[in-house]
Amino acid sequence: MTTTATTATSGTAAPPPRRSFWAWCLESEEPTDAERADLARKLSERAGTAITARPVPDLADAELRPPRTAVPDSLAAWCATDTYERAFHAYGAHFTDRARAFDLDFPNPPDVVAHPRDEAELAATLDWCASAGHVAIPYGGGSSVVWGVNPPEADTVVTIALDRLDQVLEIDDTSRAARIQAGVFGPHLEDQLRPHGFTLRHFPQSFRFSTLGGWIVTRSGGHYATNHTHIDDFVESVRMLTPKGWWESRRLPGSGAGPSPDRLVLGSEGTLGIVSEAWMRIQARPSFRATAGIVFDTWPAGYEAVRQLAQAKLWPANLRILDPAEAGRAAGLDGTQALVIVSFESAELTQRHNIAQAVEIARACGGRVEDDEVRVSDGGGEPTGRGGAVGAWRDAFIGVGNGVETSLGLVADTFETSITWDRWPEFDAVVRERVSHALRQVFGHEPMLSCRFTHVYTDGPAPYYTWSGMGRQGSETQMWSEVKHAASEAIADAGGTITHHHAVGRMHRPQYDRQRPELFAEALRAAKGALDPGGILNPGVLIDP
Amino acid sequence: MTTTATTATSGTAAPPPRRSFWAWCLESEEPTDAERADLARKLSERAGTAITARPVPDLADAELRPPRTAVPDSLAAWCATDTYERAFHAYGAHFTDRARAFDLDFPNPPDVVAHPRDEAELAATLDWCASAGHVAIPYGGGSSVVWGVNPPEADTVVTIALDRLDQVLEIDDTSRAARIQAGVFGPHLEDQLRPHGFTLRHFPQSFRFSTLGGWIVTRSGGHYATNHTHIDDFVESVRMLTPKGWWESRRLPGSGAGPSPDRLVLGSEGTLGIVSEAWMRIQARPSFRATAGIVFDTWPAGYEAVRQLAQAKLWPANLRILDPAEAGRAAGLDGTQALVIVSFESAELTQRHNIAQAVEIARACGGRVEDDEVRVSDGGGEPTGRGGAVGAWRDAFIGVGNGVETSLGLVADTFETSITWDRWPEFDAVVRERVSHALRQVFGHEPMLSCRFTHVYTDGPAPYYTWSGMGRQGSETQMWSEVKHAASEAIADAGGTITHHHAVGRMHRPQYDRQRPELFAEALRAAKGALDPGGILNPGVLIDP
Repeated sequence: MTTTATTATSGTAAPPPRRSFWAWCLESEEPTDAERADLARKLSERAGTAITARPVPDLADAELRPPRTAVPDSLAAWCATDTYERAFHAYGAHFTDRARAFDLDFPNPPDVVAHPRDEAELAATLDWCASAGHVAIPYGGGSSVVWGVNPPEADTVVTIALDRLDQVLEIDDTSRAARIQAGVFGPHLEDQLRPHGFTLRHFPQSFRFSTLGGWIVTRSGGHYATNHTHIDDFVESVRMLTPKGWWESRRLPGSGAGPSPDRLVLGSEGTLGIVSEAWMRIQARPSFRATAGIVFDTWPAGYEAVRQLAQAKLWPANLRILDPAEAGRAAGLDGTQALVIVSFESAELTQRHNIAQAVEIARACGGRVEDDEVRVSDGGGEPTGRGGAVGAWRDAFIGVGNGVETSLGLVADTFETSITWDRWPEFDAVVRERVSHALRQVFGHEPMLSCRFTHVYTDGPAPYYTWSGMGRQGSETQMWSEVKHAASEAIADAGGTITHHHAVGRMHRPQYDRQRPELFAEALRAAKGALDPGGILNPGVLIDP
Repeated sequence: MTTTATTATSGTAAPPPRRSFWAWCLESEEPTDAERADLARKLSERAGTAITARPVPDLADAELRPPRTAVPDSLAAWCATDTYERAFHAYGAHFTDRARAFDLDFPNPPDVVAHPRDEAELAATLDWCASAGHVAIPYGGGSSVVWGVNPPEADTVVTIALDRLDQVLEIDDTSRAARIQAGVFGPHLEDQLRPHGFTLRHFPQSFRFSTLGGWIVTRSGGHYATNHTHIDDFVESVRMLTPKGWWESRRLPGSGAGPSPDRLVLGSEGTLGIVSEAWMRIQARPSFRATAGIVFDTWPAGYEAVRQLAQAKLWPANLRILDPAEAGRAAGLDGTQALVIVSFESAELTQRHNIAQAVEIARACGGRVEDDEVRVSDGGGEPTGRGGAVGAWRDAFIGVGNGVETSLGLVADTFETSITWDRWPEFDAVVRERVSHALRQVFGHEPMLSCRFTHVYTDGPAPYYTWSGMGRQGSETQMWSEVKHAASEAIADAGGTITHHHAVGRMHRPQYDRQRPELFAEALRAAKGALDPGGILNPGVLIDP
């Protein structure tokens, strides 16, 4: 049975609270001058040099190039050209984006920011771009950490944000699927599904400020660590606007008719069209849970256990491992042990058998866990996985930084990949060696570099590395660049993918160009030419014209 | 660790036994005149009219148009133009293909059949086709039931069979993956994996006479009824020859870098290139099994149980339902009951908990199964699912007809689709009503029409319908055509996909053209233009030039 959701809070309602133009939070939550001064004092001690906290910037002081086009009257109701809108949409959420925003450094903002309130307004906006030859950039939630939304050099750039297309339009509770507008942010999406007993259960770390459409076109990695890891697996059909018109696939579970149209949209990063809505497979809300945190004496012993767990195909919802550095920092272990977290969940069935089998495999690999630390919840009550080392790690994951450290000399980033198991140990060694070397060169001290797996496949893990260093204030971006280059080249040389779920954007182009088949790039370029003959959609991402 | 397989039986060995040019078997296994005469007597009684069994044809009596091109000397070692080769490769395995072959009706055979023995010979063959403007058709195993390998109208057609590229080249037992040449047939592939303890575990009904490359480009549906149902999910990377050169993706489990190159190859049906090898995810051979056959009083009660089983995400290896007609005919039930078959398997873990949970769900939906009919095998011994109703059905599935009934007036076919659960009951009613109507019109008697699910998704089933009628000898193909048209149009009108796993070929083009986004066809046409600028690869399949 298909019901139309009645929780509509349409685009005509009061605008939501404004987001900070430089920090990962709302304006009302921005780090204060006092918080930054306090952190500056601590960092000064750590660095042995004076760190000064410049005041939180006032956007009124920014000088933006005037818009290079005039918005047609017919589009004026949803197109903005004020400083906040253009400055906010000039950047994504990467470390380098925030640093430039904090510096009020906006040399190339979009000329116009459109917030269409329905598909007709979206179409009118894209028509205008196509006829005027303006570049069009779909913004999603602006959570890109790969320069995926940063305007390229062009005469005129129109950034299109779908944040007013934010409704769950239909719920099919028989098929467990929902028709959802692409501009909805994670929390608002879940708020609309919850009263019906459903959840999309897609929780990237960017959840709060990223959108369904952004997840789809960047092949976002989600909640499930095994089996259905990417948003790809939850897409039933897609509706997308291209300069040549609407592209809409049908709801056909498991259709094998020709290459999948949806799989061409997935990962297209705004180069082929703008997704306006999608039918998504949704989940009944889980009430049965089971979790265990298992300690291993060494990193290799731990990841061998993860391999065996993945290949046993129990398909746990969570299956992660923290290396000793990460387990020490984020989960309170002693700095030599690795922590494996495995958990199961279900709306229908107890998970006690699954967790018992997983623990048995892990113990056979040398893992240690007391029986009373294997937590099982059979319906209702507090979720498992909220206490002890597992809970500590979870809190660290959710408490993603808001950017208080911006421009205080601290340089930090993450990079992620995937690799087959046979190459993984050597890959890990090569990446650590080359990135550590770069960190020492750049920062002159022993590096902070750690790794966890975010997702795991039968044929290989998706490792996620975190690094940081105490740099020279004012040189953060340059220092970051040197380490990032070393990391990306190490990944490419050692045979990993340049991205498992952060996307390609403009940042990862050199390594992406090395890894994808050259003929695939030619096919993709030709496909783009058919859909976007003017080449206006997010140029420079994935392929060159 | 990566080991090179040492079981090589290379292309220089003695040729394998020849296949029948008209029946689904080897020449040595062909139905005899006596068997056909015996069947003709039985069918005469059933039809109330005289059915005559024409003798099994002698291919020497066939008159084929002479080849319209001369094979260059440099290619002669692997290119054939003799009658058997050209006649055999003129058709696939559909009912209509066999009927025409039996009639020695070969108006449009390929002019040349190439059997390249390595990639260099494959490239030389395709180079010749491109430079001479010859159409090139990849043949796979010739198991197409959708006219996917039948030569189109063209000046010259070269059919390319990769049956001599049949080796497992490498096994990576750490990542559980193998590099496999695309021309290998199912049984030979399994023979090469078995000594290493592995299996691809992809068993389409065409297993004996279909190839890995064919499975990949047609998105073949395999052994697993839930979760990883298509070959798609087992492809780690692909190497494909196009007229513009080699396309090769890397082994990157779960890569999220841009749209997946492999997903464009999957389902391309020979229109973009010829797959020469692939890295495939393989399985440890299962030794733990559990199976139950569960009886339901009605078809709706049974498929509602299947929906709940699928949505509970136990991911059984088998989860099928036979409607009352099929359960009566193939599994010995009383003709009013539906049979649900559910089974689990694992190389590592007992499946007794999973089967118990599945049976509990099925019983709550009204299913009946005695405790002692739930069979569990914890390692070694005879597989479960070999006795009783489940075993009877399994035997019927494997014992796919060899074509003894060809040209004896019997008309039979299957069609398959997928549809969301919310639309399924109405879809089933519409399809049965319209196909039954056509069957009555065409055959003048009450129709034989039944249904089972071959694969099941959380958001919908993949139903597979079987029909037959006793027709007029000599008019079988025309009668088939009328029913097929009714079935395909009913599927399209009622919102199903024209194919879940049989592919599009030339047979399903009208309905495929209705269901795929028009702009996707334009993108695909452009992509093909970039890879195959001469349009020589399998023209008419999927898209028009």
